[in-house]
Amino acid sequence: MRLVVVGGDAAGMSAASQARKRMGPGELEIVAFERGHFTSYSACGIPYWIGGVVRDRDALIVRGPQEFRESGIDVRTRHEVVAIDLGRREVTARDLDGGGEIREGFDHLVYAAGAVPMTPDWARGNGEGVFGVQTLGDGAAVQAWLDRDPRPRRAVVVGGGYIGVEMAEAMVRRGLEVTLLERAPQPMSTVDPDMGERVGAAIRGLGIDVRVKTQVQGLETANGRVSAVVTQDDTVPADIVVLGLGVRPNTALAAESGIPLGVTGGLRTDLRMRVVGPRGHIEGIWAAGDCVQTVHLLSGRPVHIALGTHANKQGRVAGINIGGGYATFPGVIGTAVTKVCDLEVARTGLTESEAAEAGFEYVTASVESTSRAGYYPGASPMVIKLIAERRTGVLLGAQIVGREEAAKRIDALAIAIWNRMPVEEMTALDLSYAPPFSPVWDPVLIAARRATDAVHAAG
Amino acid sequence: MRLVVVGGDAAGMSAASQARKRMGPGELEIVAFERGHFTSYSACGIPYWIGGVVRDRDALIVRGPQEFRESGIDVRTRHEVVAIDLGRREVTARDLDGGGEIREGFDHLVYAAGAVPMTPDWARGNGEGVFGVQTLGDGAAVQAWLDRDPRPRRAVVVGGGYIGVEMAEAMVRRGLEVTLLERAPQPMSTVDPDMGERVGAAIRGLGIDVRVKTQVQGLETANGRVSAVVTQDDTVPADIVVLGLGVRPNTALAAESGIPLGVTGGLRTDLRMRVVGPRGHIEGIWAAGDCVQTVHLLSGRPVHIALGTHANKQGRVAGINIGGGYATFPGVIGTAVTKVCDLEVARTGLTESEAAEAGFEYVTASVESTSRAGYYPGASPMVIKLIAERRTGVLLGAQIVGREEAAKRIDALAIAIWNRMPVEEMTALDLSYAPPFSPVWDPVLIAARRATDAVHAAG
Repeated sequence: MRLVVVGGDAAGMSAASQARKRMGPGELEIVAFERGHFTSYSACGIPYWIGGVVRDRDALIVRGPQEFRESGIDVRTRHEVVAIDLGRREVTARDLDGGGEIREGFDHLVYAAGAVPMTPDWARGNGEGVFGVQTLGDGAAVQAWLDRDPRPRRAVVVGGGYIGVEMAEAMVRRGLEVTLLERAPQPMSTVDPDMGERVGAAIRGLGIDVRVKTQVQGLETANGRVSAVVTQDDTVPADIVVLGLGVRPNTALAAESGIPLGVTGGLRTDLRMRVVGPRGHIEGIWAAGDCVQTVHLLSGRPVHIALGTHANKQGRVAGINIGGGYATFPGVIGTAVTKVCDLEVARTGLTESEAAEAGFEYVTASVESTSRAGYYPGASPMVIKLIAERRTGVLLGAQIVGREEAAKRIDALAIAIWNRMPVEEMTALDLSYAPPFSPVWDPVLIAARRATDAVHAAG
Repeated sequence: MRLVVVGGDAAGMSAASQARKRMGPGELEIVAFERGHFTSYSACGIPYWIGGVVRDRDALIVRGPQEFRESGIDVRTRHEVVAIDLGRREVTARDLDGGGEIREGFDHLVYAAGAVPMTPDWARGNGEGVFGVQTLGDGAAVQAWLDRDPRPRRAVVVGGGYIGVEMAEAMVRRGLEVTLLERAPQPMSTVDPDMGERVGAAIRGLGIDVRVKTQVQGLETANGRVSAVVTQDDTVPADIVVLGLGVRPNTALAAESGIPLGVTGGLRTDLRMRVVGPRGHIEGIWAAGDCVQTVHLLSGRPVHIALGTHANKQGRVAGINIGGGYATFPGVIGTAVTKVCDLEVARTGLTESEAAEAGFEYVTASVESTSRAGYYPGASPMVIKLIAERRTGVLLGAQIVGREEAAKRIDALAIAIWNRMPVEEMTALDLSYAPPFSPVWDPVLIAARRATDAVHAAG
């Protein structure tokens, strides 16, 4: 039996590894095609590598091609799959260095082609010095550009989401003057405006020129290199432009092979990560990672969330099932976290606007507290906001902005949401307490109390 | 209507405050008797104050008597309640400074007399320099003893639980030579031996002479002061002896008034914190804090766990109910956390021996991982151990030993236990991920995977 994997990053290689764990090379041949030079690396680490927080590129590589080969997985880097024939159960792959094409038959196929950065028209073919940050290759290109002579001095980052904010900080660390352009009224629109404001202040505190409600209209170039970003208001000089506009599922190839896409543009799968076609799941065709859409467990809606942790889980589930085991991926609840300088920002569940959009009536409660007992050295302020369904009081969402030891508290709230806990029940939770770790009422408990009051008040 | 509170610390004053919030002074008169000088202070902070981590005693006082008086709560410090007459609904209190006695009638009574340190016979009246660490007054006595001339050089701490270990570290910080005596085969027997070993190593790393399986037989004194601790093996010189042998509920007064005690020696209450007598709850008599027993939600057994966070919650619940509201305290799951130097130790649910004692068959899984992505600066090792019920795979217990950012992960596991999650479901949890906060598989998820394997293997 043969398994072909399309895309050799987190999702694809997790699937390959799990299948291999359950079936030896005699039972299952595994061939993985990867367009780039690398396998299984931490794309989330790229901004930290560029910023110099992580010194060594190779530190980001979890497992290289040779390691996979040693466990009997035939990894072919620099090979791009250019066609999938579902009828003949065969893929065609092009050797990006040699130029030849090969065909490979399969019994199982894992489609794990990842995502591609959103690239607006104005950013296409418009001079050198414009970068997305999606692959390790992209990261290397940014590094090379920053090291060129004369050195870039001014960076413009377009998009104030996770990657945009992380890259803006990285550019500051590299000594550049940084402007961050964001279309929305605030950066980090993955949290509610009241929380996003705090993030905006922190970014400005780094010396970053944050311009919100700003629409990019085009680029200016000089000598074939980008020289400025033109907005509706202004022309912002730039020696490097970084795009942080999000990603879309890389599903063109799947669509060409006749697999219908979901409303988000991602592949639809069932709980076991089998690709779903017009008539139920397609036998032997699996998908995982940034190219799939999944379900938000609170809204019940399809969502596309490109995140390494989902990719790993989905790949693992696919691989276990291919290997004859049983595992499922039930969906997500929208947990995410990031760090801007020493400000930690985390969210889970639904934001206010997402809750409203899903049809919930809700109440909110925000509390300010500290990471440790107020009298204990290093106690630092944090704000926790909870969103609870009206009447039932079921927790729908949570957001945290704080300093050290703040953001990881979101996991406790994520598990409360996962279990559909009413905020009133949460006030009784037996959470850990000692002065170095929390006030006697942990901020999560204080927030739950306040949210309970809000639920009662709303009736 | 009048509410009398016996004991003006966390539980009693939380009850008083919540009742006051719901009923003004015109509706409800509140009188609180407190034996000591202080109200509402952080007893858990005492070791940090003695160790000099927290400089100022007053920082430990959450709310002083005057503040309570300003919100219409008649706090009488240095007043010890010496009798409760349930029939006449009246207490007798003695003024510890003036010497007089007063009687006060009540409609509601909150019994919140806290706990008293376990004091073995050998420690009674056997010279100066022997201290429990339960009240702020105890802490002040230790401070005064440490500051006397000639300064104590050698400390012996008896008991290797939370307080013992925290006090041993405090004594090291104060420059003393410290010996820690523990009866069990390891200190910190609130975690399993495999985890406790790591704690033992960390304590020894501080230069503390840790002697396990050591039974104290008595004290030696010189000039009316303690001079040594005698064990079955040895005589250990000591200029100060600190008792960390745990506490027992301070319920003698309640028992004298005719209230029957629970099997742990604590008062029994219903979910609303009404004291339970031989024929159901006793109208108008409430109890909260270190003097009550509660139920362990996993074993279903009565337990006595003296912890500020429970005291606060129980007091709040009593106060809400007294004030005409509705709130319940369902029980505990045994969550606790502490820090020894930079080692963080946390537990929740049942340990192996507790699980066996409760009648569970279980499997365990331990994993070593890191607090952040391995390549991110500051990533530090942590060990997570999970205990899951055989067959159902329901999470029964969790323990964490690690460095920074490790222990608070126990809250996520506590909420999983609270919701009776099977470890296999936990592998799908949407926990936060970014390189500064966790590896792409959070240690909690890795532990859940490993525990799932263990459940499958056990069949």
